Amino acid sequence: MAWQEVCSVDAVKTVSCIGCGLIGGGWVIHFLSRGLEVVVWDPAEDARKNLDKLLQQAMPVVFGSELALAECRKRLRFVDTLAEALAEAEYVQESAPEILSLKQNLFFDIDQHLDSNVVVGSSTSGLLMSDMLTNAIYPERFVVCHPFNPSYLIPFLEVVPSKHTLLAVSSWAKKFFEIAGKKVALIDREIPGFIGNRLQAAVWRECVHMLKEDEATVEQLDMAIREGLAPRWCMLGPFMTFHSAVSEGGIRSFIEKFNGFFDKPWSRLPSPDISPELIEKIVIATETAASKVGEKALIERRDEGIVAIVKAVSDIGH
Amino acid sequence: MAWQEVCSVDAVKTVSCIGCGLIGGGWVIHFLSRGLEVVVWDPAEDARKNLDKLLQQAMPVVFGSELALAECRKRLRFVDTLAEALAEAEYVQESAPEILSLKQNLFFDIDQHLDSNVVVGSSTSGLLMSDMLTNAIYPERFVVCHPFNPSYLIPFLEVVPSKHTLLAVSSWAKKFFEIAGKKVALIDREIPGFIGNRLQAAVWRECVHMLKEDEATVEQLDMAIREGLAPRWCMLGPFMTFHSAVSEGGIRSFIEKFNGFFDKPWSRLPSPDISPELIEKIVIATETAASKVGEKALIERRDEGIVAIVKAVSDIGH
Repeated sequence: MAWQEVCSVDAVKTVSCIGCGLIGGGWVIHFLSRGLEVVVWDPAEDARKNLDKLLQQAMPVVFGSELALAECRKRLRFVDTLAEALAEAEYVQESAPEILSLKQNLFFDIDQHLDSNVVVGSSTSGLLMSDMLTNAIYPERFVVCHPFNPSYLIPFLEVVPSKHTLLAVSSWAKKFFEIAGKKVALIDREIPGFIGNRLQAAVWRECVHMLKEDEATVEQLDMAIREGLAPRWCMLGPFMTFHSAVSEGGIRSFIEKFNGFFDKPWSRLPSPDISPELIEKIVIATETAASKVGEKALIERRDEGIVAIVKAVSDIGH
Repeated sequence: MAWQEVCSVDAVKTVSCIGCGLIGGGWVIHFLSRGLEVVVWDPAEDARKNLDKLLQQAMPVVFGSELALAECRKRLRFVDTLAEALAEAEYVQESAPEILSLKQNLFFDIDQHLDSNVVVGSSTSGLLMSDMLTNAIYPERFVVCHPFNPSYLIPFLEVVPSKHTLLAVSSWAKKFFEIAGKKVALIDREIPGFIGNRLQAAVWRECVHMLKEDEATVEQLDMAIREGLAPRWCMLGPFMTFHSAVSEGGIRSFIEKFNGFFDKPWSRLPSPDISPELIEKIVIATETAASKVGEKALIERRDEGIVAIVKAVSDIGH
């Protein structure tokens, strides 16, 4: 099936939010804050009330004042049917409950009412798009666009196509969201759990292991992340962190020095078999990424960033 | 053996840094920035040169100008022997190479020259203090004080006593470092790898699993942490993050909704057996911690913090 963009990424004026719970409501706030017209449909009884609550909650940090929020609200329309919600949409963000059959049926319903050339992104955090498309008529225009809560503040977005999704659709979504202020990873394989939540689950799993064994308390674990790892991670991800964690030799030297950093005492769980080929893969990719910034700039900006972050957090207090 | 503090935590004027590589040098910078007199001993041939390099590197963010650094340097003394380094010390930070026998011998040497009532903290990231103390004469005054690189910027510090360490010594170290600007977790069990690096290793392990399986690239993984998880984690650790990740019901509702967040699709590795008792433990500890801030304030401050952090990072650029 051919797909022809209904609207170029930088000309989108109207988006539809299907579902406005915690995640969908976050999207409503994000799109409003970006100047878009937002049409919302959510059949839940208390949907409007909850959306109001979220808008109020986001008012100080996103809109700045009641007046500004009231102005933005003029671009928000809550409608009673799916058909109305989709009538003028140039992009659709689906944030329905995480129930496979519900999403399968919803996607069929969306296809009944929506121009076949409008992209539909799903907020799902755990379902695979290919599984959700069993009833879809135009599967090629569906793609996972998974945000992180609160979606109006966290930059990262995972765009994950199904086996049916056209590359042009994924690319459209990536560009659209980059213009709409997101940092987008276009993941070219449909992996369960995607990327971000795998990493989040890894931390959580280790936390709960430690809590279970009485090795640490909830407050200590939260503190270790908040005051220890996260400020650095805001500037450097895990690979760049380790790349800059030795005096000389970067990530290769780090892996040699700490025996991969997988074994005891740092690890209790099964580790990947770290072959010479895997080390080369890590080293080359990390060095390539680092070279785009420059080794010196990496450290300088890390430090400058940590100072700003620690100060910002300290000013606000926990 | 009785231990009597040589100097109250808020009266410390002179500290000794034994070893000034990447970690020890970071400590030198930290202590100088806090107005302390710092005496350094490091037998490595290029130690002074490397310390100069680190001081220069930290100059813009820590000292602010060459002039200010020069002023601070007046409080820095590099000496030729361990005995000289320890002569006036009111606290000693040991950051020697991570070789067990070396540390065992070093601690014996320290005990030869240092007043028995001065606390010695070790920067070790992986060795257990009890294992390092086999040759020590005054084992009760040694305690792990493990920082995170760069130690002059990252607030978190793990204080981990050995089975010989006096509680008064651990408490002294905790208070001393809190006054010296650190956020301290006093861990009451001597667990291998402590807390922070276990969490860091968990992320790293999952990253390398994903890289090995070609599920994600180094750049995508670093981006997911940097732009997705870390800004939120600076404000809320993993428990508070999940506590605020559902509309209602907090962490208990989160665990029920996502089946613990351990299983597929988010997890591939063995998970803790999450019994009802463990759930209660998580829920009670998390709710207690959250209640200290207040649920509403938790969200408000999370959002305010994320805005400030994302702006700070964006101003600096990656």
